[in-house]
Amino acid sequence: MRNLTYLKTAAATAAAFALIGAAPAFAAVDSETAYVLNTFSFLVNGALVMWMAAGFAMLESGLVRSKNTATICLKNIALYALSGLTFYLVGYNLMYMDVTGYIGSFSPFWGPDDAEALAGTFSDGGYSASSDWFFQMVFVATAASIVSGTLAERTKLWSFLAFVVLLTAIIYPIQGSWVWGGGWLSEMGFSDYAGSTLVHSVGGWAALTGAIILGARKGKYTAEGRVNPLPGANLPLATLGTFILWLGWFGFNGGSVLALGSAASAIEMANVFANTNMAAAGGVLAAMIVTQIIYKKVDLTLALNGAIGGLVSITAEPADPTIGLAILIGAVGGVIVVFAVPLLDKLKIDDVVGAIPAHLFCGIWGTLAVAISDPEATFVTQLTGVVSIGLFVLVLSSIFWLILKYTIGIRASVEDEIEGLDKAELGLEAYPEFGQGSQSF
Amino acid sequence: MRNLTYLKTAAATAAAFALIGAAPAFAAVDSETAYVLNTFSFLVNGALVMWMAAGFAMLESGLVRSKNTATICLKNIALYALSGLTFYLVGYNLMYMDVTGYIGSFSPFWGPDDAEALAGTFSDGGYSASSDWFFQMVFVATAASIVSGTLAERTKLWSFLAFVVLLTAIIYPIQGSWVWGGGWLSEMGFSDYAGSTLVHSVGGWAALTGAIILGARKGKYTAEGRVNPLPGANLPLATLGTFILWLGWFGFNGGSVLALGSAASAIEMANVFANTNMAAAGGVLAAMIVTQIIYKKVDLTLALNGAIGGLVSITAEPADPTIGLAILIGAVGGVIVVFAVPLLDKLKIDDVVGAIPAHLFCGIWGTLAVAISDPEATFVTQLTGVVSIGLFVLVLSSIFWLILKYTIGIRASVEDEIEGLDKAELGLEAYPEFGQGSQSF
Amino acid sequence: MRNLTYLKTAAATAAAFALIGAAPAFAAVDSETAYVLNTFSFLVNGALVMWMAAGFAMLESGLVRSKNTATICLKNIALYALSGLTFYLVGYNLMYMDVTGYIGSFSPFWGPDDAEALAGTFSDGGYSASSDWFFQMVFVATAASIVSGTLAERTKLWSFLAFVVLLTAIIYPIQGSWVWGGGWLSEMGFSDYAGSTLVHSVGGWAALTGAIILGARKGKYTAEGRVNPLPGANLPLATLGTFILWLGWFGFNGGSVLALGSAASAIEMANVFANTNMAAAGGVLAAMIVTQIIYKKVDLTLALNGAIGGLVSITAEPADPTIGLAILIGAVGGVIVVFAVPLLDKLKIDDVVGAIPAHLFCGIWGTLAVAISDPEATFVTQLTGVVSIGLFVLVLSSIFWLILKYTIGIRASVEDEIEGLDKAELGLEAYPEFGQGSQSF
Repeated sequence: MRNLTYLKTAAATAAAFALIGAAPAFAAVDSETAYVLNTFSFLVNGALVMWMAAGFAMLESGLVRSKNTATICLKNIALYALSGLTFYLVGYNLMYMDVTGYIGSFSPFWGPDDAEALAGTFSDGGYSASSDWFFQMVFVATAASIVSGTLAERTKLWSFLAFVVLLTAIIYPIQGSWVWGGGWLSEMGFSDYAGSTLVHSVGGWAALTGAIILGARKGKYTAEGRVNPLPGANLPLATLGTFILWLGWFGFNGGSVLALGSAASAIEMANVFANTNMAAAGGVLAAMIVTQIIYKKVDLTLALNGAIGGLVSITAEPADPTIGLAILIGAVGGVIVVFAVPLLDKLKIDDVVGAIPAHLFCGIWGTLAVAISDPEATFVTQLTGVVSIGLFVLVLSSIFWLILKYTIGIRASVEDEIEGLDKAELGLEAYPEFGQGSQSF
Repeated sequence: MRNLTYLKTAAATAAAFALIGAAPAFAAVDSETAYVLNTFSFLVNGALVMWMAAGFAMLESGLVRSKNTATICLKNIALYALSGLTFYLVGYNLMYMDVTGYIGSFSPFWGPDDAEALAGTFSDGGYSASSDWFFQMVFVATAASIVSGTLAERTKLWSFLAFVVLLTAIIYPIQGSWVWGGGWLSEMGFSDYAGSTLVHSVGGWAALTGAIILGARKGKYTAEGRVNPLPGANLPLATLGTFILWLGWFGFNGGSVLALGSAASAIEMANVFANTNMAAAGGVLAAMIVTQIIYKKVDLTLALNGAIGGLVSITAEPADPTIGLAILIGAVGGVIVVFAVPLLDKLKIDDVVGAIPAHLFCGIWGTLAVAISDPEATFVTQLTGVVSIGLFVLVLSSIFWLILKYTIGIRASVEDEIEGLDKAELGLEAYPEFGQGSQSF
Repeated sequence: MRNLTYLKTAAATAAAFALIGAAPAFAAVDSETAYVLNTFSFLVNGALVMWMAAGFAMLESGLVRSKNTATICLKNIALYALSGLTFYLVGYNLMYMDVTGYIGSFSPFWGPDDAEALAGTFSDGGYSASSDWFFQMVFVATAASIVSGTLAERTKLWSFLAFVVLLTAIIYPIQGSWVWGGGWLSEMGFSDYAGSTLVHSVGGWAALTGAIILGARKGKYTAEGRVNPLPGANLPLATLGTFILWLGWFGFNGGSVLALGSAASAIEMANVFANTNMAAAGGVLAAMIVTQIIYKKVDLTLALNGAIGGLVSITAEPADPTIGLAILIGAVGGVIVVFAVPLLDKLKIDDVVGAIPAHLFCGIWGTLAVAISDPEATFVTQLTGVVSIGLFVLVLSSIFWLILKYTIGIRASVEDEIEGLDKAELGLEAYPEFGQGSQSF
C-alpha cells in the first residue's frame, strides 16, 4: 500500500530472481516449511498468551487496595507457574491424549515426540509437539487467572493455590477434552474457537462458586444494604493490564487457528486479528456510551472491563464474522459488563475486579453468538455446551471449594483482612512509602 | 555465530535431508509461502504497533498529575478503540481505495476480499486483506495518541474524542492518500517510509493547533512570566511507556517494509530494526549529553523524549541509512527535543508530555533527512511534502477545534481543572490511597 | 488439537490445492525461505530480548526506594542505548570477527554485508547480517542491566555509565569471543547455549566487584551487625518487571537456536520455549516452598527472584533437557536464590535487587548442569569455562571500578545518598505527589 516502498522491494526481489535465472513459480508451501510455520505460530502466539498472565497481574494489582497488592502479585505469578506444572503432570494428557468421549488419559506429558519430523516425514498440518504443549499450557493459566481477581483481598494464599491445582489438573482438562480433545461435545457439533466457554466461562464459574462460598470482603456490603465501592489503589496499572490482555488476545485467538502453513490459515489468522481488535473496540465504546447514558459519567474501570468483555465475546468465533459483526458482538459484551457489575452487587456477590461479568457472562454470550456467524453451529448445541460445561464446573468447583473450606480453610482471618494480606501473609508492604490516603478501608 | 549450537543444528538438518534423500536445493521462496510470510509480518508487526497505544497511555499517565491520571488512561484506550472504528467506517478506503490524486473513496472497508488467494492464485507481494487493514489501522491510532498527551489535564473527554473522530476519519486518511495511497505527493517523489510526516507530524500539528486554541493549564504560566513545571506523578510509568514505544517501533518501521516473502525484504526489515534501535539510542545519549552540558544535570523526561525524538527522526527512512548515519539522525532528534521543550514554554504553548517537539519537530527533521540517505529523494520534494501536509493539517484541525470550541466546548471548567478531571469527569481517583504530596497543584 | 477448527482449515487448504491442481508434495524448506525464516527469528526473538531492558528497568524501579527511582530508570534506558553504541563501535567485531583464540578484531561493525544474498545466493543457515547484529546487541545490554540493579541507590550516574562502556566494549566481547566467537573455550568443548555464564555470570561478577568496591548503602548494615531491609517502593512494578523478563527470555533462549529454517530448528526452538517456561515455574515454586518452610511466610521478592533464578539456570542448556529435568534445574535455581540472599547480607555485600544470587550463582549452577543433560559436555570443561571467565571478569572489572573510583569517583556523596539521587543528581522526584510513608529511610 505504501507504494514507493513496496515497488522498491518488489524491484529488488525481481532483480534477485533475474540474477538466479528463476521465475517466481506458482507453487504451494512445501511440507517442511508448513511445519516450521505452524510451529512458529504456536510459539509467537503462545508467548503473547503467556503475556496475558502479566496482564491479569497488573489489572488485579491496580484494582485491589494497596494493603493486598503484593499478595495478588504473588498469587498471579504463582498460579502461572503452578498451572504449567499441573498441566504437564496431568492436564495435557487428560485433555488431549486418547480421549474417549468424556476424558483423556491420566498420564504425564513426559516429553515431546518429534521423531517423525526429525526423520524428515512431515505430515500435513504438522508441528512440533512442544510448541503445541506450550500453546495449550498458557491457556489453562488464563482460566486460573480469572479466579484470582474475583477472590482477591480475602483468600488465603496456599488455599487459593490448592484450588488452582484442582482447577488446572482436573476441572479444566476434563471439560476441555469434551471439545478440543475431540470428546462428546465436539462430536455433537459444539463450537468454541478459542475458549469463550472452555477457558473464560470455566474461570468465571470457578470464580463465582468461590465468591459465594467465600463470602464478600468485610465492609463491602453494609448491614443497611449499602454497597461500599472499596476502590482500587492504582488505576494506571489496571489500564496497563487491560492493554496487555488486549495484545495477548491476538495470540489467544490468532494462535487458535492452529496453523500458519498455508495461505488459507494465514488469511484466517488475519481475520481473527482484525475481528479480535474490533470486538474489543466495540466493547470499550459500548461500555462508555451506556455508562454515560445511565450514570451521566464515564467510568474508567467499566471501560477497561468493556474491552475485556468484548474480547471474551469474540473468542468463541473470531474467524467467521465480518468486522462489522465482530464490532457488534463485542459491543454487546461491553453492555453486558455495565449491567452485570451492579447486578452482582445486588446479589452481594463480591467480585473484586469484575471478572465474572467479563469472563462468565460475556463468555456465555460469545458462545451463543457463534450461531449467528457460523452456519454449522446451532443455538441449541451451543447452549448445550454452555450448560453442560457450566454445570460440571459449578459442581466440581463447589465440591473443591467446600473441601478446602472445611479442611485447611480458604478465608483469611478478620484481623488479617483488616490489616491487609500483605502484612499478614507476606510480612511486607507493596508501597511502603506511599502514605495511606483517605479512602483506605 | 554461537558456533556450537549452530553446528549442531546444521548437522541435524543435514542428517534430516540425508534421510529423505533430498539435497537442499538452491531455490526461491514459492508464492504461497511468500503470501503467508507477508501476511504474518503484518500481523506480528501490527501487534507491536498496537502495543504502542499502551506505551502512549503509560507515558502520559506518568507525566500528568495524579488528579488527571485516570482520565488520560480512559482517553488513551478510548481513542485507540475509536480510531479503529472510524478507520474501518471511513478512513481506510478514503486513504487507499481508488485514490485520484488528492483523495480516495468515501466508503467503508466492509470486509476483506481474499477470494483470489483462497482460490490458489497468489500474486507477487500478496497478503491477506485483513492483515493489511490491521497494520494500517494501528497507525492511525498512533497519530491520535500524540494529541492526547499534549492536551492532557484540561480537555473535556467527549470533545477530545469528537476531535479524534475527525482526525482519524478525515484529516489523517486524506493526507495519507497523497503519499501511501499513491496520490500527488507520491507521484512527485515525496518519500516517507513509515510516517515521520504522515503519522507523527500529523499528530503533532493537530496537537499544536489544539494547544494554541485550548490554552495552557491554569498555573502553568504565571502572570509574571514564570514557567511552573507541574511535574508528572509517576516517572517509572513514563519510563515504561517509552520502552513500550521503543519496542513497538520495531513493528512500526519494520512492518513498513510491507513484505517478508523474499530475502531482499527480510534484509530490509533487519536493517530497519537495527537502524530504528540505534536512532533511538542516539536520541537518548544526545539528549542526556546536551542536557548535562546546558543544565549541569540530566533530566529523565528529556532522556525519554530523546528516545522518542530519535525514533520519530528515523521513521521517514529507516532502511537506507548505514547504522552510523541512523545514530546521527537520531542524535539530532534528541538535541531538537532538548531545545524545543523550553522554546514552546517561551511561546506559552503548553504541551504536557513534550509531544510536539518529539513528534512534530523531529518528524520534520526526519523527513528532510531522507534526502541525505536516499539518492532518489530531494530536499525540495521532501520540504514540499512537509509543508503541504503541515498546512493541510493546520487548517483542517484549526477549523475542527474551533467548531468544537464554539459548539460543545473543548475545555474543562476552571473548577474541574483545579479539582482534577478524574473526580470531575469520572467521579473517581487514580490513586485513592496515595496521599497528595507537597507539589500537587 | 482443537479439532473442529483444524479440520476446517485443513479442508480449506485441501480445497485450495485441488483448485490449483497441485498435491502438497513432500519437500524441504528452500534456501531463500530458510534465509527469511532465520532472519525473522533473529528479529522477533531479538525484539523480545530488547524488551528485557524494560523488565530490568521495572524490576529495579520497584525494588529501590522512591527517592532513587527516577535515577534507576534513567540508568536503565541510558545503559541500553550505550550498550548498542559500544557494541557497534567495538564490541561486535571484537567478539565475532576473525577471532584468534582469545580475541577478535578491534574494528567497528560499520555496516551489514548482504551482497551475496541480494545476488540470490543463499548459503545454508544464512541470515541477514543486521539481524544477527541486532540479536547479539540486545544480549550485551542484558549483562549491563544486571550491574545497575545491584549497585542502585548509591552509584553516580556518569561513573556507572563509564563502567557500562568498559563492560560492553571490552569485558563482555573478549570473553564472549572465547565461546560464541569460536575461541579457545569453544574449542575445548565448553557449552553455554544462551549465556548463563557469558551473559548472566558476567553481569553478576561485574556487579559483585562493584558492590564490594563501592560498599553498602548507608544504613543497610548497622554497627551492631543488624541488617536493615530498606524495602522497595513499588512491588507491582517489580512483579511486572519479572513478567517482562520471563517473556523476553523466550527470545533470549529461543532465538539462540540461531535458526528457524528447518523442522529441526523449529523443534529445537519449541523445546527451548517449553523448557524455559518450566524452569522459571520451577524456580518460583521452589523459592516459595523453601521460604515458607524456613521463614513460615512467603516473600514476594524472593518468588520473583526465584523465577529469574530458574530462568538463568536453564539458559546454559535449554534445548536438551526433558521438561521434567528443566523444572528441576530451575527449582534448584530458586532454592539457590533463597539461600544466597541472606548469605550476601552476612558478608555485608549490598545487592539492592538480589541480582548476584539470581544471575551469578544460578548462572554458575546452570552452566555446570549442562553436564547432566548434554552428553558432549563434561563437568570439568564446564567448570573451566566458569572459572576462567569468572577470573577474567573479576580482574578486569576490579581494575575498571578502581580506576573509576580513584579518578572521577563512583559513589554519590553521603548528603546526596540521604537526600536521594533523584533530587541530588536529576533535580526531580519520581513520585512528587505520593506522600513519604513511614519506612522511608
